[in-house]
This record gives sequence, structure tokens and C-alpha cells, in this order.
Amino acid sequence: MKRLPDLSQLDGLAVVLVRARNPLNIGAAARAMSNFGVHRLRLVNPYAPGFREARSAVGASDLLQSAEEYKSVAEAVADSALVVGTTAVRERALELPVHRLDEPAGAAIRQQLQTQSVALLFGSEKTGLTNKDFTHCHWLLNIPTSRQNISMNLGQAVAVCLYELARSTPLEPPAEDVKPATAGELEKIIQGLMESLRISGYVKPGTDAVFEKKARSLILRFKLQEYDAKLLLGMVRQIVWKLHQGAKRE
Amino acid sequence: MKRLPDLSQLDGLAVVLVRARNPLNIGAAARAMSNFGVHRLRLVNPYAPGFREARSAVGASDLLQSAEEYKSVAEAVADSALVVGTTAVRERALELPVHRLDEPAGAAIRQQLQTQSVALLFGSEKTGLTNKDFTHCHWLLNIPTSRQNISMNLGQAVAVCLYELARSTPLEPPAEDVKPATAGELEKIIQGLMESLRISGYVKPGTDAVFEKKARSLILRFKLQEYDAKLLLGMVRQIVWKLHQGAKRE
Repeated sequence: MKRLPDLSQLDGLAVVLVRARNPLNIGAAARAMSNFGVHRLRLVNPYAPGFREARSAVGASDLLQSAEEYKSVAEAVADSALVVGTTAVRERALELPVHRLDEPAGAAIRQQLQTQSVALLFGSEKTGLTNKDFTHCHWLLNIPTSRQNISMNLGQAVAVCLYELARSTPLEPPAEDVKPATAGELEKIIQGLMESLRISGYVKPGTDAVFEKKARSLILRFKLQEYDAKLLLGMVRQIVWKLHQGAKRE
Repeated sequence: MKRLPDLSQLDGLAVVLVRARNPLNIGAAARAMSNFGVHRLRLVNPYAPGFREARSAVGASDLLQSAEEYKSVAEAVADSALVVGTTAVRERALELPVHRLDEPAGAAIRQQLQTQSVALLFGSEKTGLTNKDFTHCHWLLNIPTSRQNISMNLGQAVAVCLYELARSTPLEPPAEDVKPATAGELEKIIQGLMESLRISGYVKPGTDAVFEKKARSLILRFKLQEYDAKLLLGMVRQIVWKLHQGAKRE
């Protein structure tokens, strides 16, 4: 089977959590970063004492320990060439365009990351990013959700965004490396099945031809691989043998 | 700017959490479902008393209240035509192919959902799905992650999968106008086949579990349509009946 390439490199990406309140969410964001190969976590005024010990950061405690704290968004994004803010609403905010994550926006960020550093901002659980935060952004990113519930959990929003950024280019569907059964192998199964059906009385005398047609087209529709055909033939043969044993005694 | 269409309809999708331990994760899964327009939550043996009141289900408490509880995976997926298990590893498990979420696998599920019901299974936080759980699956789905940390949080994994399934336009409806068999119908065939194999001596006493796994994965690979499942079940039942007749006389 053809292998897809590994994840995109996201070394240049910084995840910036602005005024995050819940240590569990900060830990969950760190875990998602670790899952998708993102290592730079920045916190602007985290309202969450003790977040560095959050138990939700499974496999990402180092990342949490080395998170950088900033007093302002400006400082947190100072070294970034592209600053993107996340928002739960799809309408333009201020004069900023809003791009959906499932648009080429994700691909655009990936492309930028090949040459530049990018900061991706997430707001607090209660209020999201403010208009003031938005003034630091080049554009905004929206995760498309149901209109009935647009408010995502912070850790889940981070996970979804990073999955989209890390995913590799979609390729051709993988060709499965399977060897189909030959017609000869299938025929043995069909004959065994027919014999079982005759002995068991499913096929009444004189109706063989009709049922053989049914049985054959059924077995063909299974699209059996070689391995499965051998397995099935073994089963059918044993059942036929046993049915014969029973029939002899009648 | 060109508007993208809204989310894909995921009405036919059931999210099945198998042995989930943490009420917060169950709530988070419900929240993600609500975010992406999925409404059918099923729990198999949840190890989490009080999960229905989980505060993490922001905007999804109705969904959590109406979640269905089951004693086994078989019951939870009985009405589903396609059963997909999630796994953190990319290698084949048993005889099941593993497809990556960023492959056309996501699109394939979306397409199935236009005409059939699909169950998406997630295992417990500690151990994921077991090999026994896998025997109920047609194939497995893997979220591509960094090799350094393949273990995702349950709620985040649900969010990422549902984002991928809900994103973008539905594809063309499947060309063939066929109705696949449900997992419940297949289960009856599997049980009938197992009985035949036991009576005929193909399955030796004490090796039931191994052979049931083999038989189940074999039958799932047939990708039976409803009509064929009925036909095959009728055959198997008649053979079982006859085998019993013979066995009685021994």
C-alpha cells in the first residue's frame, strides 16, 4: 500500500492562548500541539495559576513547562510574520477577512510556514478574542460549525486547527495490496455450498439450476480475496462432511 | 468571497464511546458532536457514573441526556451498515485495513452517510478499542499524529474526526442503488456460521473466540447487501437445522 507522507512540518508555528482561564484547557492545548508536532506555546496573561502542572497535558508536560508568558498580544506575536486570530463567527470583524479552516486558508498557512513564522491566536473560553486582539491579526480563521452551537471548547478548537494545518496533501486513494481469489477457487466453494443446501433440504430436488445461479452470484458478489476463499472453502468442506455423516444415518 | 456550503449532513452518524472512563471526556465528546451537527451518542459500558451531568457538555446537555447506553458493542452498532473503529496506530490490526483520516477515508464515510447509517467507535482513554471491539468493524480510522505522541485526548479525537466528516461539500451520491446489510443482520449470520462450525467439528471446543474473530472478519469483508444477507442467513439457518438433526442421532 502506498504510504502517505508524514505530517507537515509546523516548526515555525506558535500557538498563542490569550487570557486562557482553565488550566485543564491549557494542558489540553499542549497535548494537541504535541500530537501534531507543534512546540511553541505562548500564553498572554493566563488566568490560571498552576497551569504548568495541568494533568491534561498527557505526553506534553515538557512543552507546558517551556511555555512562554507574555503581558500583551503585541509582545507574544512580535517575531511572527503572519498573525491569524481564531473566531467562532463567520462575519467580518473590523476590516479583517474571515477565512474558513476548510477553505484553502489552512493550506495558505502551511505554505507560509515554509518560509516564515506564524502565530495562531485563541481567545479566552468565555469571550474569545476581543476587537483589540484582532487589531494584531492579518486575518481571521473560523472553524465551520453547526449554527446551533458555534462555541467550541478551547482544547478541541486547538486540536482541530492543528490537525488541519498538519495534514499532508491529499493524495490518490491507496491501492490495496490484495490478491483476488481465482474463479476455480470460487467454483469449489459454490459446489460445496450447493451440496450443503441440497443435503439440508434448502434446495428441493429439480430446482438445482435456479439455486446454483443464486448461490454463484452471491459468492461472486463477495469479491473474495485468495486468503478468504481458502478459509471459506475449509469451512464449507467441513460442514459438507458433517452433513454427509448425519445423512448416512437416516 | 465565494461562500462555501454549510456543513455536510451527518444525521446518519452515531458516535459510540466504548468503556469511556472520564465524565468530562464524555461531555466534551457531546459538545464536539453538537458543534458539528451529530446527534446520536451511544455509550457501551461507560465507567463514569454521573456523566449525564458533565459540565463540559456546553451547549450539548440535551444530547448527553438522550445518550443511549448499551451492554455490548454488537448491540450498539446493530442498526449500522458501516462500522468504523478509531485507532492511534497506523498498522493493520487483525485483517482490517487502517485508513488515515486525511486520506479519502473521511470522504468515503461522508458518502456512505448519504444513504446509510454509520457507527464511529472510540475506545477508552486508557486502552483504546480492543481487538475484540475491532472484530465488529469493517475498517479502522487513524488520525495522523506526530510519532512522538500518538495518544490523543478522547474529546479532542472526537472533535477532529467530526470536523473532517462535516467539512466541505458532500460528494456525489454513490452510483449503485444498493442497501447494505446492517451489523445486526450480519451478526445473525455470524452466529449461525459459528454454530455450523461447532457442530461440524471445524471449531474445536475451547477455540471459539479465535474462530469467532475469524468468522466475523470474514463475513464483514463480504460487504453484504441487505438482499444477500437475507439469502445467506436463510441458507445458514437451514444448514444449522440439518446439522442439529444429524447431531441428535449421534
